[in-house]
Amino acid sequence: MSATGPVHEALAALPLVDHHCHGVVTAGLDRDGFESLLTEGEPWPGISPFDTPAGVAVRRHCAPLLDLPRHAPADAYLTRRAELGAHEVNRRFLAAAGTGTFCVDTGYTPHRITTPAELAYTADATAYEVVRLETIAEAVMTEGVEPDAYTTAFRTAAEEAVRRPGVVAVKSVAAYRTGFDLDPARPSAAEVTEAARHWSAAGGRLTDPVLVRHLLWTAVDLGLPLQLHTGFGDNDIRLHRVDPTHLTDWLHLTKGTIPVLLLHCWPYQRQAAYLAAVFEQVYLDVGLTLHHVGPARSRAILAEALEITPFRKLLYSSDAYGLAEFYRLGALAFRRGLGDLLQDRVDADELSLPDALRIAAWAAGDNAHRLYGFPPPEPIPASASAPAPESRQHRD
Amino acid sequence: MSATGPVHEALAALPLVDHHCHGVVTAGLDRDGFESLLTEGEPWPGISPFDTPAGVAVRRHCAPLLDLPRHAPADAYLTRRAELGAHEVNRRFLAAAGTGTFCVDTGYTPHRITTPAELAYTADATAYEVVRLETIAEAVMTEGVEPDAYTTAFRTAAEEAVRRPGVVAVKSVAAYRTGFDLDPARPSAAEVTEAARHWSAAGGRLTDPVLVRHLLWTAVDLGLPLQLHTGFGDNDIRLHRVDPTHLTDWLHLTKGTIPVLLLHCWPYQRQAAYLAAVFEQVYLDVGLTLHHVGPARSRAILAEALEITPFRKLLYSSDAYGLAEFYRLGALAFRRGLGDLLQDRVDADELSLPDALRIAAWAAGDNAHRLYGFPPPEPIPASASAPAPESRQHRD
Amino acid sequence: MSATGPVHEALAALPLVDHHCHGVVTAGLDRDGFESLLTEGEPWPGISPFDTPAGVAVRRHCAPLLDLPRHAPADAYLTRRAELGAHEVNRRFLAAAGTGTFCVDTGYTPHRITTPAELAYTADATAYEVVRLETIAEAVMTEGVEPDAYTTAFRTAAEEAVRRPGVVAVKSVAAYRTGFDLDPARPSAAEVTEAARHWSAAGGRLTDPVLVRHLLWTAVDLGLPLQLHTGFGDNDIRLHRVDPTHLTDWLHLTKGTIPVLLLHCWPYQRQAAYLAAVFEQVYLDVGLTLHHVGPARSRAILAEALEITPFRKLLYSSDAYGLAEFYRLGALAFRRGLGDLLQDRVDADELSLPDALRIAAWAAGDNAHRLYGFPPPEPIPASASAPAPESRQHRD
Repeated sequence: MSATGPVHEALAALPLVDHHCHGVVTAGLDRDGFESLLTEGEPWPGISPFDTPAGVAVRRHCAPLLDLPRHAPADAYLTRRAELGAHEVNRRFLAAAGTGTFCVDTGYTPHRITTPAELAYTADATAYEVVRLETIAEAVMTEGVEPDAYTTAFRTAAEEAVRRPGVVAVKSVAAYRTGFDLDPARPSAAEVTEAARHWSAAGGRLTDPVLVRHLLWTAVDLGLPLQLHTGFGDNDIRLHRVDPTHLTDWLHLTKGTIPVLLLHCWPYQRQAAYLAAVFEQVYLDVGLTLHHVGPARSRAILAEALEITPFRKLLYSSDAYGLAEFYRLGALAFRRGLGDLLQDRVDADELSLPDALRIAAWAAGDNAHRLYGFPPPEPIPASASAPAPESRQHRD
Repeated sequence: MSATGPVHEALAALPLVDHHCHGVVTAGLDRDGFESLLTEGEPWPGISPFDTPAGVAVRRHCAPLLDLPRHAPADAYLTRRAELGAHEVNRRFLAAAGTGTFCVDTGYTPHRITTPAELAYTADATAYEVVRLETIAEAVMTEGVEPDAYTTAFRTAAEEAVRRPGVVAVKSVAAYRTGFDLDPARPSAAEVTEAARHWSAAGGRLTDPVLVRHLLWTAVDLGLPLQLHTGFGDNDIRLHRVDPTHLTDWLHLTKGTIPVLLLHCWPYQRQAAYLAAVFEQVYLDVGLTLHHVGPARSRAILAEALEITPFRKLLYSSDAYGLAEFYRLGALAFRRGLGDLLQDRVDADELSLPDALRIAAWAAGDNAHRLYGFPPPEPIPASASAPAPESRQHRD
Repeated sequence: MSATGPVHEALAALPLVDHHCHGVVTAGLDRDGFESLLTEGEPWPGISPFDTPAGVAVRRHCAPLLDLPRHAPADAYLTRRAELGAHEVNRRFLAAAGTGTFCVDTGYTPHRITTPAELAYTADATAYEVVRLETIAEAVMTEGVEPDAYTTAFRTAAEEAVRRPGVVAVKSVAAYRTGFDLDPARPSAAEVTEAARHWSAAGGRLTDPVLVRHLLWTAVDLGLPLQLHTGFGDNDIRLHRVDPTHLTDWLHLTKGTIPVLLLHCWPYQRQAAYLAAVFEQVYLDVGLTLHHVGPARSRAILAEALEITPFRKLLYSSDAYGLAEFYRLGALAFRRGLGDLLQDRVDADELSLPDALRIAAWAAGDNAHRLYGFPPPEPIPASASAPAPESRQHRD
């Protein structure tokens, strides 16, 4: 776990493309608020989220950035964090992440979190937007739509959303709604109308399997890369139904259309690697996982993910939500894990150093640049939508 | 694999809570008898169970306790074992296990094995009892019950069983009977009566899916922690149906009721970890696995199990049945594997030593104490039911 | 990853039994041709199959055998390969593999590849044949058969095929056709006739679930060991349906009949190990996987496969098809991975050296010899069917 050698140095110098993340909370956080965001579960009586691999990693790798000793106790950590204030804390961790480009899923906002522009400003980086399709579909339904107009209304709303400047991809959380064991075929107009009728009557979230399929096929029509949550998440997931290999038939049907980005993947990183090895359009990352397992296990998970994944198919994402610490931890765990893995292969003469540096640069950002073709000049000028002065009073 | 450092020393000094195990055979064992117990398969012509990771571990780590050299041949091992006699052998291995507390599943007794009291006496430890619910249900059916009285009869018998002094948990082997891909809802009275009618007519083991569900819900009513076999076992298992994530819907329905202890878990230790991370009531161990893979792989498996498991959710069990060697091996593999994993993180400064020691103490026993709340003074006084003198003639 | 120590030396000296492979292409290969064979996917624009773990391993471990420096660029590699000519290249890699015995699946020949005799001649080794049952069944159907005569015609053709000298096993690619989530029972005559009628009308490959079951049961009747593709393959696979534990019920029904060899297995090597531990007739290898992951990960995968696999149940195969490089890489990754794993256990005193050497010899070939009982004198005399002089003009 010693982070030394030319591959580590190269990775330290490379600004990352974090191709899937959310924002950071802009307000200060008390213990409950912080602990709630630290876990995919909940804080339970007697079981602090600090007593997890992620909690240990925060105390080890984030405390020093708040001027505390490594492994500072949770209480000291939270006190110092409050003392510095949200904006300063966010600024420090985002700077430490060394990320140059963010793709921000803007469709999940139970807390007041940064907009892409605010995130870009705080991190001194560039941010693009990822449109969450379920959010679009649910807005369409909430606003009221005749069942037989649903397809057009959803498609129109989605097209409008992705035309916004800076949008580079769409995302689906089908994993949370039905899992992937779906009929892979595009549903008929009649099926969609019927399902929309049921949904309209029942209300609530989009969970109808026909409409989830319809959403995935709408993504195909939109033509942008599609990010798909797979594997690990909160307890809304039925984990065995989000093994991405359940998508195989759908991937056959959608060959030659859009890139499909498998997010997170753990514990199915090998299954995701298989798909990335045999389908041109499939890419993967192990985001979310990295900050939850921490640097102590990131190498092991990346090693499994890379057993057969073509080196142009691995991307980096933090999937950080809420806590700025996760940007720091995700980036650290990625650089450390990939660096250790590649440097060890160089040291064992299994890989040449130039090849290792090339693979590191690909995964750190080149693969994302190739795939998303980020529009030059920054699409959401950070200065244009900088936070109002009062909200950045602690900024240096 | 060098078992040194302060974490190893701390673990060596901590008496373990083995929260799920069976007894040891009280009779001597010939080669066939020993080999049958050494494998989850069977001894097959030309394929000795000694030629497995478990067999190698027995010859390496158990032979010295019988005054033989490390890696002693199987024949020499069995000869010396017979020479010392069952009681002395059992005593030596149980002492070497360094276990202070056993929770003994008393519902599986194809051999004459120790009672909890006998196990406690031999090991100079405390034993509690775990009531296997299938055994209760099958006794109720065997004794004869009207189908529409089954629910009450089973419930009454189970309540009676768990009122016995020293009972701290119930257990289900639903994994062996149906797997976990069950309707999660509590079955209706009519459904249970109908299923009981079929079972009554057909005889045999409890395998009806309705009655298995009913059993799991009866466990909820009983209010004690529920131990669930998951993953690895003998060939009665359909392994893909005992991935514990199939329990997700049932875990949602039973939130806020009883603790659920996932036993064994391999090869689904990451899936079990996910459940432990997102459901308050879920805990796990990697018992059974540890003595079968031996110390050479226990660290790797614990590392996967701990990728995201909250540190208050990991328990120790041996799941040892029959051979006293398994108590020794399970405890060794646990202490070695966890010690190596934690000590390496301390050495890499990923974890502070006080945190490592705390996590070690939690997993070794504190988590079990917190969960089971073992009743003080020993509930089954060892002396009261000590083996008769003739059966312990070899005891020192 | 240092390949030193007595176990490595022993493995280097042991001629391997490669119990499942295909032939090597006899013609020269241009870049497209080579890259197509280097991946289980396809060469995609901008994503060279050289930029994979397998591609890196070819440049590292195969380039020196073509008189190039380690890590030679892909272009230089392909130029030198063309310069030497197919026969010389094949000869060099096959010699470097150190394989004494090949079992060759002759039922998959999209390219002109070596016959078993040609492979044996080029490698200076012995070759046996494995009969692919789907190929037999499809030939029977193509030649025309009345639906109610299908069972007899297939059985007769299969019996004829396995009577050919040198045939030691049969193989099924049921994994590619239906996966293993099949009714385990032998289908009735009426079911088979009905299914054959449909197939006869529809044409194409054998994909009917009834006929796939029928094929597996025909394998039982033939009495030879049955090789089963499981896990990893090209995108014709639905990976989640080829987890070999789906075969559990069928393995119960076929106990005491034929040996069943689980091929490849990744990412289900632990699931395969479970079956090998609890069913007498089950054996496994991690072929195909080894050359795709390369020596950098072969030890990790073998370690998982061997967590509980009885040591008499692990076999070696390359599953090499097309590229002679894969014979070299598969053998290297196996020897290196197993050598590292066993030597480290010896160094840690977890395993005695004599036991390690015994286990190495078993896996390298003794287990295959025991299982297949290869007929002495070479059944397909290499000289009798040596390639014509013009096709071996580059041979030294």
